[in-house]
Amino acid sequence: MADSEALSSLAGDPMAVEALLQAVFGIVVDEAIQKGTSASEKCHYSIQKGAAFLGLGTDSVRVVKADERGRMVPEDLERQISMAEAEGAVPFLVSATCGTTVLGAFDPLEAIADVCQRHGLWLHVDAAWGGSVLLSQTHRHLLDGIQRADSVAWNPHKLLAAGLQCSALLLQDTSNLLKRCHGSQASYLFQQDKFYDVELDTGDKVVQCGRRVDCLKLWLMWKAQGSQGLERRIDQAFALARYLVEEMKKREGFELVMEPEFVNVCFWFVPPSLRGKQDSPDYHKRLSTVAPVLKERMVKEGSMMIGYQPHGTRGNFFRVVVANPALTRADIDFLLNELERLGQDL
Amino acid sequence: MADSEALSSLAGDPMAVEALLQAVFGIVVDEAIQKGTSASEKCHYSIQKGAAFLGLGTDSVRVVKADERGRMVPEDLERQISMAEAEGAVPFLVSATCGTTVLGAFDPLEAIADVCQRHGLWLHVDAAWGGSVLLSQTHRHLLDGIQRADSVAWNPHKLLAAGLQCSALLLQDTSNLLKRCHGSQASYLFQQDKFYDVELDTGDKVVQCGRRVDCLKLWLMWKAQGSQGLERRIDQAFALARYLVEEMKKREGFELVMEPEFVNVCFWFVPPSLRGKQDSPDYHKRLSTVAPVLKERMVKEGSMMIGYQPHGTRGNFFRVVVANPALTRADIDFLLNELERLGQDL
Repeated sequence: MADSEALSSLAGDPMAVEALLQAVFGIVVDEAIQKGTSASEKCHYSIQKGAAFLGLGTDSVRVVKADERGRMVPEDLERQISMAEAEGAVPFLVSATCGTTVLGAFDPLEAIADVCQRHGLWLHVDAAWGGSVLLSQTHRHLLDGIQRADSVAWNPHKLLAAGLQCSALLLQDTSNLLKRCHGSQASYLFQQDKFYDVELDTGDKVVQCGRRVDCLKLWLMWKAQGSQGLERRIDQAFALARYLVEEMKKREGFELVMEPEFVNVCFWFVPPSLRGKQDSPDYHKRLSTVAPVLKERMVKEGSMMIGYQPHGTRGNFFRVVVANPALTRADIDFLLNELERLGQDL
Repeated sequence: MADSEALSSLAGDPMAVEALLQAVFGIVVDEAIQKGTSASEKCHYSIQKGAAFLGLGTDSVRVVKADERGRMVPEDLERQISMAEAEGAVPFLVSATCGTTVLGAFDPLEAIADVCQRHGLWLHVDAAWGGSVLLSQTHRHLLDGIQRADSVAWNPHKLLAAGLQCSALLLQDTSNLLKRCHGSQASYLFQQDKFYDVELDTGDKVVQCGRRVDCLKLWLMWKAQGSQGLERRIDQAFALARYLVEEMKKREGFELVMEPEFVNVCFWFVPPSLRGKQDSPDYHKRLSTVAPVLKERMVKEGSMMIGYQPHGTRGNFFRVVVANPALTRADIDFLLNELERLGQDL
């Protein structure tokens, strides 16, 4: 990124709204022509929401196919762009994702950037969840190509565990685009006759008026932990996720949705009554009722909180996100033991 | 309000974006027809920003005249609506303000509500600053008519001194409008197969995804202080503002912009070299250069922070907002003495 703008903004994912807005301002489009935005089918729902919010309408968002691991298929992106153009739409933004919410998938950015370059499209990368991986020398290859993005959304409040909310929008543009988009020059708030360089005042660049200095949390954390300390957090999260996966493989009753490439570990707990019944016709239907029951039990016991969800054609499965830097192997062991204990009669 | 929705949302004033969005969804308008929004000329800049953000365009905001105290003139509102309709626009929202940023003016809500009722327009009240006055039996008359609003924005983080950010959007509508506007039914986040009433989950109602539970601050403060405690804060703020005004009148060198009706005390500090020169042709020009100099001095000394701004045809004047519940008369005396000290050579 040639320029970066720290925003204590619309918490995390609605950064997509910001990026959409930048793109709308940044690219000349004929207002009379249908506009188009492309995003992977596994992208965050904020893309649709952003389009609705900005008055573009959710129909202007075209969904691009993802592969079985949840990664955008660049060939389908190319196809969607051609189809949109053939229908008279004017595509202007592609939103790729680094670290999807459920599977933790990273879209192939180099290939997507090639497509964007060919068609002159704004490339936004929603790295809200996965962006922090850039701090790890070992794992940053997952984001190869992100340097070609026009805008990147990143939430230090996620994997880096900064306090909610701490979000950054990084822009390639160096022309003070945020000011040009959002500046309202309210003279009763943003005085120009100050004794210092008023370019330092960020108030007129952002969407909100009164707001917290959320970027301070990132700055303080970075000062306290150093780049190496933050890198250790990331590497440790990957290592603990790997530990969780390997421990699951040693136990009966845990079925991985897939080998994770990130710290999202998605799995089914297969209770005793369903083990060995994989071929029974109602297996998947019965399996999908397990997670809600276990979730209810853990909440009522107060022992854990693990999210679950259906996803595409897959029924309810648990998703453990190994992110808390205070987690240890003992916590992972507890988690597995507790799931077995809570589900032993199912 | 028949229904209220606490939102830990876009900090304060961009609540206008929310309200605009509710209104767009809540009223059937022909999309092909120019839409119109009316707001007082002293309204917060967030109204224009909201219109831009939602894709309505800032040109769709019509500015209604304010009187010399900054209050919307209902007759001009009526006139603007007729003019807009004559031009083929479809007005749909009127934004009134309770507590304008600079002068602390309260728009005449009853008269404005009458106009809205006659024309079938959504009445939004930006009570971000002044809404807390409702807690005071003595001063709540300033907001007479607010019960007729369709939506009200209120920032407990302002006059009530809740920690930034704590904002509420209150709606007359009881049909779960926020859900209908913002609900995205992202099945991977908002599971429906929970063991409790999922209507209690607010996640799918709001614009953001990850966000802080900002309403907890209001709840805790209210529990700790009680309604009477909060009322005392408001009444004390009014009393201290009055004390500040009376003390100014006793001293040379302080010229009130107007008698305040709220806790915004707007005034010029007239330095010794300008006293008695009110009739000199460059008096106002020279007076407007005083506040920036004093501001620089107080910032560099680290003794105070008082905002200033120009406003309409008035040159730079100071605005002391008496809101901090820890303020005492001694602080007010210090403020006046310090201004005199810092400005004695001017």
